[in-house]
Amino acid sequence: MLKLYYARNTCALASHIALEQAGADYEPVRIDFATNAQRSPEYLKINPKGRVPSLVTERGILTETPAILLFVSQSFPKARLAPLDDPFALGQVQAFNSFLCATVHVAHAHRMRGYRWADDPAAIESMKRKVPQSVGDCYEIIEREMLKGPWVMGETYSVSDMYLFTLSQWLEGDGVDIKKLPKVADHRRRMSEHPVVKKVQAQELSS
Amino acid sequence: MLKLYYARNTCALASHIALEQAGADYEPVRIDFATNAQRSPEYLKINPKGRVPSLVTERGILTETPAILLFVSQSFPKARLAPLDDPFALGQVQAFNSFLCATVHVAHAHRMRGYRWADDPAAIESMKRKVPQSVGDCYEIIEREMLKGPWVMGETYSVSDMYLFTLSQWLEGDGVDIKKLPKVADHRRRMSEHPVVKKVQAQELSS
Repeated sequence: MLKLYYARNTCALASHIALEQAGADYEPVRIDFATNAQRSPEYLKINPKGRVPSLVTERGILTETPAILLFVSQSFPKARLAPLDDPFALGQVQAFNSFLCATVHVAHAHRMRGYRWADDPAAIESMKRKVPQSVGDCYEIIEREMLKGPWVMGETYSVSDMYLFTLSQWLEGDGVDIKKLPKVADHRRRMSEHPVVKKVQAQELSS
Repeated sequence: MLKLYYARNTCALASHIALEQAGADYEPVRIDFATNAQRSPEYLKINPKGRVPSLVTERGILTETPAILLFVSQSFPKARLAPLDDPFALGQVQAFNSFLCATVHVAHAHRMRGYRWADDPAAIESMKRKVPQSVGDCYEIIEREMLKGPWVMGETYSVSDMYLFTLSQWLEGDGVDIKKLPKVADHRRRMSEHPVVKKVQAQELSS
């Protein structure tokens, strides 16, 4: 059985939704960031990077959201979570997910994890101040250029929808006005009403 | 024919090596960062994010290194650039590439592109000062946990080798002592002697 290590309000939600949507046999295991459990010796053996998500499989452990989303898509092809046999379409899914991972999530992380990139408290405060703009700029590109509608990739629902939904939870906290992003806002509303998404969010809150 | 937009000394080198290794029919097109050509209206039509690499295909444009590397692997399966039919092994390749994209490259970017995340000049200087440590920490994990040897994924050469080689060019500039990373140093030396890598690096320098 697969085992997903996640923490509440993190990007691990995307992998959690994908596993549930795929009908996978998996166990979600909560890591408590409030007690810094992601840095415990036990967890660092699972993921030396001290982050979530981590997916324990019978072959070994996978990390990084874009990788786990591809693994789940490929392991459960009947769920049609990604266009596996179309190199260009799959490239678009991976490009979108890479942008979320390396640019959007990173811009967001400067609000609460600035210590990763500077030691000076004034510098960390300066990073926080720029988050509304840097995250807002990312979503402006998503709104204008990337979200095809109704789903990220157009007519076909995919792991990119799960990932965008996950990160778009953070918009208000990052000081971005979602009213200026009508397509992103509509996407988030529709995702939040999806039975699988509702089930996973309820599970994460109750565990 | 494929067209790869790249700039010298950037992560686009990985995609360039992959296309050459795959035997693809492609045209490399240099974007001059010195004149800020990546922000020109013409280039922003190709890639609204104003970054390299961008790969123009007959179906449309792909961006983001992990996505382009997967696309090239899947489009030229005979070149065996990735374990396409093994979900776990492909997940490992994607996890490694995601770590390079979202953590290693991002740590490096704080040396010269701190303006993305703060406006205050003192904050930008503070970010620069932390780069040797933050990039060094990433490579310490690669050295200890991720680079299986002789290649990143063990016995099989893959796109992850091309991507690691590309980013490891920047170690000295980032103030990281490569002598403390014997596996990474040995990997970089062997890659630099690979005929395809030599050909691509010579092409980028002469164009």
